[in-house]
Amino acid sequence: MTSLPVAVDAMGGDDAPWSVVDGARLAVERGIPVVLVGQPERLEAADGFEVIAASQVIAMGADAAQSVRKMKDSSMVRAAEAVRDGRASAMVSAGNTGAAMAASLLRMGRIRGVARPAIAVPIIVPGRAWPNVLLDAGANTECNPEWLVQFAQMGAVYCRDRWGVEKPRVGLLSNGEEAGKGSPRVKETFELLEDEAWQSQSGAVFAGNVEGRDLLADLVDVIVTDGFTGNVALKTAEGVAKQLIRALLAAFDSSPDARRGAELLAPALAPLYDEFSPDSVGGAILLGVDGVSIISHGASSPTAVANAIQVAHDLAQRGTVGSLRRILSSG
Amino acid sequence: MTSLPVAVDAMGGDDAPWSVVDGARLAVERGIPVVLVGQPERLEAADGFEVIAASQVIAMGADAAQSVRKMKDSSMVRAAEAVRDGRASAMVSAGNTGAAMAASLLRMGRIRGVARPAIAVPIIVPGRAWPNVLLDAGANTECNPEWLVQFAQMGAVYCRDRWGVEKPRVGLLSNGEEAGKGSPRVKETFELLEDEAWQSQSGAVFAGNVEGRDLLADLVDVIVTDGFTGNVALKTAEGVAKQLIRALLAAFDSSPDARRGAELLAPALAPLYDEFSPDSVGGAILLGVDGVSIISHGASSPTAVANAIQVAHDLAQRGTVGSLRRILSSG
Repeated sequence: MTSLPVAVDAMGGDDAPWSVVDGARLAVERGIPVVLVGQPERLEAADGFEVIAASQVIAMGADAAQSVRKMKDSSMVRAAEAVRDGRASAMVSAGNTGAAMAASLLRMGRIRGVARPAIAVPIIVPGRAWPNVLLDAGANTECNPEWLVQFAQMGAVYCRDRWGVEKPRVGLLSNGEEAGKGSPRVKETFELLEDEAWQSQSGAVFAGNVEGRDLLADLVDVIVTDGFTGNVALKTAEGVAKQLIRALLAAFDSSPDARRGAELLAPALAPLYDEFSPDSVGGAILLGVDGVSIISHGASSPTAVANAIQVAHDLAQRGTVGSLRRILSSG
Repeated sequence: MTSLPVAVDAMGGDDAPWSVVDGARLAVERGIPVVLVGQPERLEAADGFEVIAASQVIAMGADAAQSVRKMKDSSMVRAAEAVRDGRASAMVSAGNTGAAMAASLLRMGRIRGVARPAIAVPIIVPGRAWPNVLLDAGANTECNPEWLVQFAQMGAVYCRDRWGVEKPRVGLLSNGEEAGKGSPRVKETFELLEDEAWQSQSGAVFAGNVEGRDLLADLVDVIVTDGFTGNVALKTAEGVAKQLIRALLAAFDSSPDARRGAELLAPALAPLYDEFSPDSVGGAILLGVDGVSIISHGASSPTAVANAIQVAHDLAQRGTVGSLRRILSSG
């Protein structure tokens, strides 16, 4: 049990600092200790919060690696340092994803044995209590088969620790279900994933290839892919959902009859909205760094920020990084 | 102007031969000449149709390359031969995609100068009269940058010939809009695509990187990617749309109020259904082979089959393969 606070990058996110401070306040109301990291003069109204001072802000569109190297007193870098130095249990940022990744990696370091950290993103599975975890969602555009096996291990540990899935099923994203499908690299990864050793070590089971259409399906619990494909698949899913919902909303408002119909349907559609809302699944996590680092969407609402803080706190409490260390350093 | 018939593989598709024959009949009613290719004894009831006899049928799940090599009297191989031999203007199959591809490639051959044929798939763009063309949707899991430039050329010609888009904008699918984003291979392709020569030669313009979320957006007209990524993106889009629609339909039927609301909304939703229906955009095309080969979905309805036949006929009439020959053999 840790009573350390979660370090929250108060300067990251489209409506920072206020969306973030409001989210932090919600988290505190849930009993989670929080320390804000940012420019004290812009956080004066955030009364009641402990603040770690950081004079610089890394912009949303800034070059990630360069910013992190140069802006040593940025909120993101200071938040990662707070975790490294044992002042915070975990960090949360809704800022520049690449910079949050770089800051976490450079300040917290990698877990011993981990070749590359990966971004793991939860994807809702309609009708199921837990999402599918997709990784890598964009940290590494090209991946060796060996890295992908580590992603499978890390994804399985994360899935178990966060959602209580006893024996996570891991699928490999490919262009066909059959074992022989995929690029040469995917085929090689398939063979490595068939090996029993990593499966028993991680308490996971390899379920073979999955396809793009299975992203939201209850076929597996963890979906492994390189960061390029993962990014494309994830953004495709978001784009299609947005386009469809936009078209629906326009239809709902297209005539008096349609508006009356939409009103009658509202109670039936509300749970659907909650289920498909990105707010409810919480942020992405950078797996493989030696600390808990949660990366929230730039457009995160206060609720989304609060959920991300809660997830960060819970994972720190459960010692997820310790589990990852045990499994990966022995691999 | 050709008055040659379109060769239709009567044995390919989930409900073959009848879904296909019904589709062929619809096409004939539209004034398009059709010749069926398949087992005469199973097509006896297809009165009024000319039939090219083929004794073998390649199953939906069969190994593509092997089947095409061994089953020389299959409907797919015979249909491709009919195009090669000048007995048909184009071919349409709703059977095994890989086999249709292999049969077309082996019997029609490649257009001179084409390194690899690619599957081009239309993706609806809500509110726009023409779709985005995505290629390669799965013919080549790994692609050299040079091949991708040819895909851009072929996609542009196809887009202009089929939908009358004067100067197609070509986007490169990547994990970020910025020029520096992507795998090493994508970055290299970006540089080649920036070259003016292919653009002026093809009457196209390179519009830079696009992301997964832009698949259905009115940003470009042609989206170029390798067959692995293209397949994943396309199936992701299909999967998300299906999951969302399934969830909506369940909500529409969840209470008497919801049912009444859905009834009131029906007239507003009907055009949406038509717009998002795969039937309306027609089949995929194998670009780069020396003939028109349209590959329709296995679950194609008679209307979808008729539309595919119409597209095949139109492209043959317009001399699309001739345009491709001119542009690619001079490249």
